Amino acid sequence: MRIKLILAYDGTRYGGYQSQANTLAVQDVLEKAIEDLFHEKIRTMGASRTDTGVHAEGNVACFDVETRIAPAKIAFALNARLPEDIRVLASSEVSPDFHPRFQRTVKTYEYHIINRTFPDPLTRNFEFHYHYALDAAKMDAAARFILGEHDFASFAASGYSSKTTVRTIYEARVFREGDRIIFRVRGNGFLYNMVRILAGTLIEIGAGKYPPEKMEEILLAKNRQAAGPTAVARGLILKQIEYPDA
Amino acid sequence: MRIKLILAYDGTRYGGYQSQANTLAVQDVLEKAIEDLFHEKIRTMGASRTDTGVHAEGNVACFDVETRIAPAKIAFALNARLPEDIRVLASSEVSPDFHPRFQRTVKTYEYHIINRTFPDPLTRNFEFHYHYALDAAKMDAAARFILGEHDFASFAASGYSSKTTVRTIYEARVFREGDRIIFRVRGNGFLYNMVRILAGTLIEIGAGKYPPEKMEEILLAKNRQAAGPTAVARGLILKQIEYPDA
Repeated sequence: MRIKLILAYDGTRYGGYQSQANTLAVQDVLEKAIEDLFHEKIRTMGASRTDTGVHAEGNVACFDVETRIAPAKIAFALNARLPEDIRVLASSEVSPDFHPRFQRTVKTYEYHIINRTFPDPLTRNFEFHYHYALDAAKMDAAARFILGEHDFASFAASGYSSKTTVRTIYEARVFREGDRIIFRVRGNGFLYNMVRILAGTLIEIGAGKYPPEKMEEILLAKNRQAAGPTAVARGLILKQIEYPDA
Repeated sequence: MRIKLILAYDGTRYGGYQSQANTLAVQDVLEKAIEDLFHEKIRTMGASRTDTGVHAEGNVACFDVETRIAPAKIAFALNARLPEDIRVLASSEVSPDFHPRFQRTVKTYEYHIINRTFPDPLTRNFEFHYHYALDAAKMDAAARFILGEHDFASFAASGYSSKTTVRTIYEARVFREGDRIIFRVRGNGFLYNMVRILAGTLIEIGAGKYPPEKMEEILLAKNRQAAGPTAVARGLILKQIEYPDA
């Protein structure tokens, strides 16, 4: 049967989600726990690669296994074998043709900023520290320009190759919670580094470098040079992946 | 001149705030940064010792120094010399007779609980994970019994010696924020382990082991055996220390 896992992890000490040479990936650690539990090497399929230092509260991975363990209990058995910085939040059986990446998905990300003189040591690994004043209302106004279907070529890491750079954004807003500013975005797909480049651009707008309307101009430029810098990885959290067809 | 520091730290890797043999304390690291900055060994006076693994967002330390650095700039200079898990949030000059511990103080603590099936890897070091259902409203009703002046002998670690076990509590409440339950308490002093024993007792009440009124009975018993267990250190955060007379 095919098992779907909802994964949360602190990405600080990992070289991203997906296995690759010369770095410890979340996938490596997960597959070791799976091997430990089922006594066989099982390859998993992940929904989102997430970069080095990026966190997740709702990444998704799947694998096939024949077992008598009830699907919902697999989460408990895996958590007993995983380090504290990775948790399986839920496990369930899905259709054998379910694929976490090739299926239609809606993803939600948050980018967290702490906007005060000094960082907070308790949350330092999960937010970007920005010392100077940021106007969250202006950032929010700017974020509205990306709502709907657009060509996001300006917000893709250069060298990125994909069939299309058109994506649809269903939710994009910026709000302040005390010293924190949160950029929340939900869409049908994101180009490589897209959320971090959006965040880096919104920070420039919040700092007053450009007016909110600059966002539309950047979109129309379809050129990475037009947008702001890529915001640091530690502020990014993959919150949720929805599967509308599953 | 006497300098007062407001300190925030992630207590995870420290053996508490105060220097002692065979462990790395926050004070050790702070005094090393101070020595680095002023080129002399300077002894600091801390307001609250905080136990191993306990965190702070508002501990206070003082020291005397002759320097031409503006008092408010000392925070910046120390942060450049401190590890990421300790931050000086503010530095200021205070009266030479100000002492962070012997002065009258009002302290605020929070105890954080994550109440769901699995812990959250992003906040795992800053909250206690409790799997079973907790009734925050019952915990809140129980917390109200400690408001005002009481003898808290039941909530002091055994072996604790102090002139008096009477303390005054100005605020004591429990509230839920999604999966989190927060116990917030503000008072003119706390006995050793008092907040953690209060938290451990409130968790038993929230789990339905006792009704909220049990809290009054425990207070009147003046016996550590009457109260619940000491909740784990990682959930405790020293939020603020006020000096009404300073």
